[in-house]
Amino acid sequence: MAVDLAAVRQALAAQRIETPSWAFGNSGTRFKVFAQPGVPRSPEEKIADAATVHRFTGVTPTVALHIPWDEVDDYRALADHAASLGVGIGAINTNVFQDDDYKLGSVTNPDPGIRRKATDHLLQAVGIMDATGSRDLKLWFADGINYPGQDDLRSRQDRLASALREAYGRLGEHQRILLEYKLFEPAFYATDIPDWGTSYAHCIELGERATVCIDTGHHAPGTNIEFIVAFLLRQKKLGAFDFNSRFYADDDLMAGAADPFQLFRIMNEIVRGGALDPAYGINFMLDQCHNIEMRIPAIIRSVLNIQEATAKALLVDRDALARAQAEGDVLEANAVLMDAYDTDVRPLLAEVRSDLGLDPDPVRAYLRSGYQEKIVADRVGGRQAGWGA
Amino acid sequence: MAVDLAAVRQALAAQRIETPSWAFGNSGTRFKVFAQPGVPRSPEEKIADAATVHRFTGVTPTVALHIPWDEVDDYRALADHAASLGVGIGAINTNVFQDDDYKLGSVTNPDPGIRRKATDHLLQAVGIMDATGSRDLKLWFADGINYPGQDDLRSRQDRLASALREAYGRLGEHQRILLEYKLFEPAFYATDIPDWGTSYAHCIELGERATVCIDTGHHAPGTNIEFIVAFLLRQKKLGAFDFNSRFYADDDLMAGAADPFQLFRIMNEIVRGGALDPAYGINFMLDQCHNIEMRIPAIIRSVLNIQEATAKALLVDRDALARAQAEGDVLEANAVLMDAYDTDVRPLLAEVRSDLGLDPDPVRAYLRSGYQEKIVADRVGGRQAGWGA
Amino acid sequence: MAVDLAAVRQALAAQRIETPSWAFGNSGTRFKVFAQPGVPRSPEEKIADAATVHRFTGVTPTVALHIPWDEVDDYRALADHAASLGVGIGAINTNVFQDDDYKLGSVTNPDPGIRRKATDHLLQAVGIMDATGSRDLKLWFADGINYPGQDDLRSRQDRLASALREAYGRLGEHQRILLEYKLFEPAFYATDIPDWGTSYAHCIELGERATVCIDTGHHAPGTNIEFIVAFLLRQKKLGAFDFNSRFYADDDLMAGAADPFQLFRIMNEIVRGGALDPAYGINFMLDQCHNIEMRIPAIIRSVLNIQEATAKALLVDRDALARAQAEGDVLEANAVLMDAYDTDVRPLLAEVRSDLGLDPDPVRAYLRSGYQEKIVADRVGGRQAGWGA
Amino acid sequence: MAVDLAAVRQALAAQRIETPSWAFGNSGTRFKVFAQPGVPRSPEEKIADAATVHRFTGVTPTVALHIPWDEVDDYRALADHAASLGVGIGAINTNVFQDDDYKLGSVTNPDPGIRRKATDHLLQAVGIMDATGSRDLKLWFADGINYPGQDDLRSRQDRLASALREAYGRLGEHQRILLEYKLFEPAFYATDIPDWGTSYAHCIELGERATVCIDTGHHAPGTNIEFIVAFLLRQKKLGAFDFNSRFYADDDLMAGAADPFQLFRIMNEIVRGGALDPAYGINFMLDQCHNIEMRIPAIIRSVLNIQEATAKALLVDRDALARAQAEGDVLEANAVLMDAYDTDVRPLLAEVRSDLGLDPDPVRAYLRSGYQEKIVADRVGGRQAGWGA
Repeated sequence: MAVDLAAVRQALAAQRIETPSWAFGNSGTRFKVFAQPGVPRSPEEKIADAATVHRFTGVTPTVALHIPWDEVDDYRALADHAASLGVGIGAINTNVFQDDDYKLGSVTNPDPGIRRKATDHLLQAVGIMDATGSRDLKLWFADGINYPGQDDLRSRQDRLASALREAYGRLGEHQRILLEYKLFEPAFYATDIPDWGTSYAHCIELGERATVCIDTGHHAPGTNIEFIVAFLLRQKKLGAFDFNSRFYADDDLMAGAADPFQLFRIMNEIVRGGALDPAYGINFMLDQCHNIEMRIPAIIRSVLNIQEATAKALLVDRDALARAQAEGDVLEANAVLMDAYDTDVRPLLAEVRSDLGLDPDPVRAYLRSGYQEKIVADRVGGRQAGWGA
Repeated sequence: MAVDLAAVRQALAAQRIETPSWAFGNSGTRFKVFAQPGVPRSPEEKIADAATVHRFTGVTPTVALHIPWDEVDDYRALADHAASLGVGIGAINTNVFQDDDYKLGSVTNPDPGIRRKATDHLLQAVGIMDATGSRDLKLWFADGINYPGQDDLRSRQDRLASALREAYGRLGEHQRILLEYKLFEPAFYATDIPDWGTSYAHCIELGERATVCIDTGHHAPGTNIEFIVAFLLRQKKLGAFDFNSRFYADDDLMAGAADPFQLFRIMNEIVRGGALDPAYGINFMLDQCHNIEMRIPAIIRSVLNIQEATAKALLVDRDALARAQAEGDVLEANAVLMDAYDTDVRPLLAEVRSDLGLDPDPVRAYLRSGYQEKIVADRVGGRQAGWGA
Repeated sequence: MAVDLAAVRQALAAQRIETPSWAFGNSGTRFKVFAQPGVPRSPEEKIADAATVHRFTGVTPTVALHIPWDEVDDYRALADHAASLGVGIGAINTNVFQDDDYKLGSVTNPDPGIRRKATDHLLQAVGIMDATGSRDLKLWFADGINYPGQDDLRSRQDRLASALREAYGRLGEHQRILLEYKLFEPAFYATDIPDWGTSYAHCIELGERATVCIDTGHHAPGTNIEFIVAFLLRQKKLGAFDFNSRFYADDDLMAGAADPFQLFRIMNEIVRGGALDPAYGINFMLDQCHNIEMRIPAIIRSVLNIQEATAKALLVDRDALARAQAEGDVLEANAVLMDAYDTDVRPLLAEVRSDLGLDPDPVRAYLRSGYQEKIVADRVGGRQAGWGA
Repeated sequence: MAVDLAAVRQALAAQRIETPSWAFGNSGTRFKVFAQPGVPRSPEEKIADAATVHRFTGVTPTVALHIPWDEVDDYRALADHAASLGVGIGAINTNVFQDDDYKLGSVTNPDPGIRRKATDHLLQAVGIMDATGSRDLKLWFADGINYPGQDDLRSRQDRLASALREAYGRLGEHQRILLEYKLFEPAFYATDIPDWGTSYAHCIELGERATVCIDTGHHAPGTNIEFIVAFLLRQKKLGAFDFNSRFYADDDLMAGAADPFQLFRIMNEIVRGGALDPAYGINFMLDQCHNIEMRIPAIIRSVLNIQEATAKALLVDRDALARAQAEGDVLEANAVLMDAYDTDVRPLLAEVRSDLGLDPDPVRAYLRSGYQEKIVADRVGGRQAGWGA
């Protein structure tokens, strides 16, 4: 294969994935949240878990916060705490969906007072970015309606645009907005940002520091996600990923668990678009729920899955691919791509890890490390972190 | 139209729909449960609300219970309480998904002790049926797995079959099992009874007192639900409905809200199959979540929507339809059906209600009645009913 | 209801729907095309059928052409022929998918010679617009790939953009591009314009005379089409509809046949956005396949279905709706909308037709007219029009 | 890995996959059939191509026929011809969808004369089985309706059951029915056998020689196919596969091309159920359309994809898997499965082929062999085989 293996190793060593503080806490479905022993009880403990994942994988040096779930008095101190554990603060995620006020929407609510409150929360989040040095304001709105007629779709867009403008105006020069979209849930008739096109159109109107965030679980059945990746890269409007996987809806399973070939195709477009390098600016985040499996090893496993998809994408013989494509040789072009996908890249990644001084098998290394037993023993009493907690 | 309007009115007056106790309590999504004022705090208060719905609609004389959400010391007393309010106890719904034990399944759990506990719960539910005079044991299993390999699909079927046999064996002569299926949620890779075919196959093996329950929100996109209705009627294995509606997944919106034409097509197969008459034995239940709208009027509205779909189905000119079908006149056959659907049946239903001594507009009558204000004032303190509460 | 019925009648009388020449010819699935007697054998005969539809409905005064299916030597003469029958030439549809050259794409083909040929076809179509007085260049590209790796997604976008720019540059001052999108078929892995967002982004780059065309059958399951309508109206980028209906994929059934409530919701956003008036500039086209039903009455029926959905949308009590929405009264707002939907508007439309001197029941009037018998008798010999013919 | 590699090699060498005669002919979408050079012009030439695939893969010793596409005067002679080329005749596929008579259905048609004709075709196919020694009568019905009301769903089931009974009664002792199902296409509202449950219920009523055939492209989005496999194996009612792959609907792409992980999960249930061995009796067929790629190498590639999925399934460490499942170790159980999936099995399969005296890379061996050039040169004139030809 005409691939520069040293460059592949270097790219893999330089890859960066961000972990989400909330994935370390309890989560579940509307039917039940199963609590796990050892779950963090504070933002500090969540950051400690994130730092642990970084210690074993070597590629997750930042952790995203969720406000108000990670609310603290002193954000600078929290950032310092993170730094002392070897990680930095990543994206600041806003939450305008868990107050009773937000039953009919946040920034799109028909009530101007509630819109004001929600927009103020966005501005407050930028303040936290200032304090923590975070670059990214990640905006996901649960806003939408459950019944036709419940509210006016177009007016809600106007209200949304207004709040976005205000938040955008508050950004510092090196800060930016990551605007997420989602097909449905918790709204069941119409969601105010249901697809990448809606997010894109708002980002275009906001300006160049507004970019689209792709959550891999937020699409209609049959949606070709890697097409969206390729298209947004072409438009210079892809800012971030929320990685997870799904068989049905927003299942939030471990990245790569449901459709590893899709994850490979996504990373293939990233590599093809020259967007893997951290300098390009895409924030590759995880956003998952580990409802029944142990959380820290599940997050490690997800990181490994993304690394494996990336390694395969880096192994694609680009020259051979371009040649077959130019010749219209459908089978050969597909075969070149599949040749990379069918490769077992685990030995290659084991080498990369060894070169970085890491254990080649991060999951087993974690399980052997005693960390899990320690947190189960230590984290007794207090209130476990969790969705809404 | 060659339709016997007197017979239509009679059929509408005789129609029966069952309300679910849990729909009167709080519900929500995994993101948030919005509490409402006036929500019942006990099984007795839920039954009072169900009786109120019956008072205004005249067609909802039974209320389904959910165990353990509606657990009481004395079920006979609960049934008496219901009777004193003018309603009876309908299906007994089991719940084997909210204990920590059930994280990896209930009757399909790899752990035999947990399977025993879950099966015992099913047997206990039959005891409640004995005490309350309920005919129907409704079984919905949240069982499933989130990741390929997590458990063995086939062994889980064996375990499921074993528990079902035991529950079936416990049934009295006039009792029966309603076996529900669901595509996904809360399990995200494989659900142990994912479709009507699986439920049907188990029911066949159990015997004639086991029948399929169709929840209208539990199908893959594109599934033709009325085909399943027609097919199960032909096989004499349709036992019940859980009515609700959805645009996406198991959205649990008000019946008829998302796709009124689909609801009409379903009721059309019921009428065509001669299965509307309560004597036929189908339990037409609601199973919905009113996350953001007022619950009692939402349930009344759902009942009205089913009534309207039924009225339209009854208005189909069966002779003209059969003639056009026999002639292969595609457009005319479709037109005959649509002619009934396009009819505004609200005046007809208003008449039926007046004949029954009811207000012709049950929603407005309820809103005028003062009941809502009263429960908001009275039901203060205590613990609101809700999913898991 | 606080609705100005005279204004409603006027709006309905002024509504305009465009018929597609190809819907009068044979069509089918990949499995079989069932020929029908009386099918047109020339563009002139298709136009005669379209004129017949207009004669009975009064609201379809233009007919869209498809090139090369409607290729003639003298387009001005064709337009005169149409005018003599009482109809005008509508959108010019290009076809760059039925030559052997286009196996791997047209304007996105890796082969520059084939791209040139396809682009020239677009330019030729503008020439036909000049000759016929058509305003609209409708572009649908079957372009896409069947296998991952088959071609480079991003390069194909560059090629697409280039061809679109060239076609746009050729437009006259009063001409415009309608850019269609489609999720899949005939391409089965990636389509080059798969969703409204992609079409929108290209239209933005082209300029104000490029607008999006929504084909109601071209979306992923669960897509909220009326949201797209509302959003594109807000962005001033909605140019046209291709109406049809579907239960599964691009089924191309009669408009309103599969989900009449959805059609109502779409027309409701049109009315709410003030876009029903022909002066607004949206081209409301049909694009359907009548594989098994008689074509002319099927097209008439589709027109009636759109009229009925429009009438219901016009009957929505906007003041009451806005009030309930502002108050956050979910049930009441939904009820206001449904009140209009549940109304039987056929008598109202019968009146509108009578006022226009038309038969109140266009389908039956057509069937009585003898036209069908005449074309069956006359159109013998020659080659029936059909997809690809 | 505690896997017996010799047994794996043996199982792979013994695996059998059936090729379909029609996949060697032209196919396409409703938009266009792209002809290819070298396409067979007769059943004999199709069989020659099938024999060629077997020559290079070593695992495809039978070819399925499609009647009337493969109609000949002397079927015994055709079978002898096949035998002389080293292959046997596999399943006989009936075609009751391409005559004009079948516009509104075949065995479900409201017209009894058309039903008779269609049923006679099924009986005729059994005669061909007698003549060719074929064991399997494969039944796929395109039957369905496009519009609600068009025909009576339940009456169509009665007609279907009647025709099936007649065909079943005509079977010889060692013959059987494979009953296929399909969600939609070419019918767009209701299909008469839309899902496995419907096929299963009919097979139960027919008897033990009627079994279900799973076409991997015939399901609703989100359907868990391997669950159906596991379930039907448990019920002893799985008779055959039609392998292909899809991203959207019945795309008929090469098996394993769209979702290789799904194909692995399917083969994993086959291995787990002990059903891989040809003696078990499952007919593993391909059923694909190679619309734009070269057909023979595409079919070879599909065979390889199934072999690779099978090899991975055979490599699953069943003991470790069972242990992790019994312990409820979600991550470990999933990891055991994924460990097999992530393995590059191409070297193992290359060995198996070498042991069988085959070239380790069948696609390249075919391309080098000169066969393709020869058929392109020889097969000139005559009428290319194709759907409907």
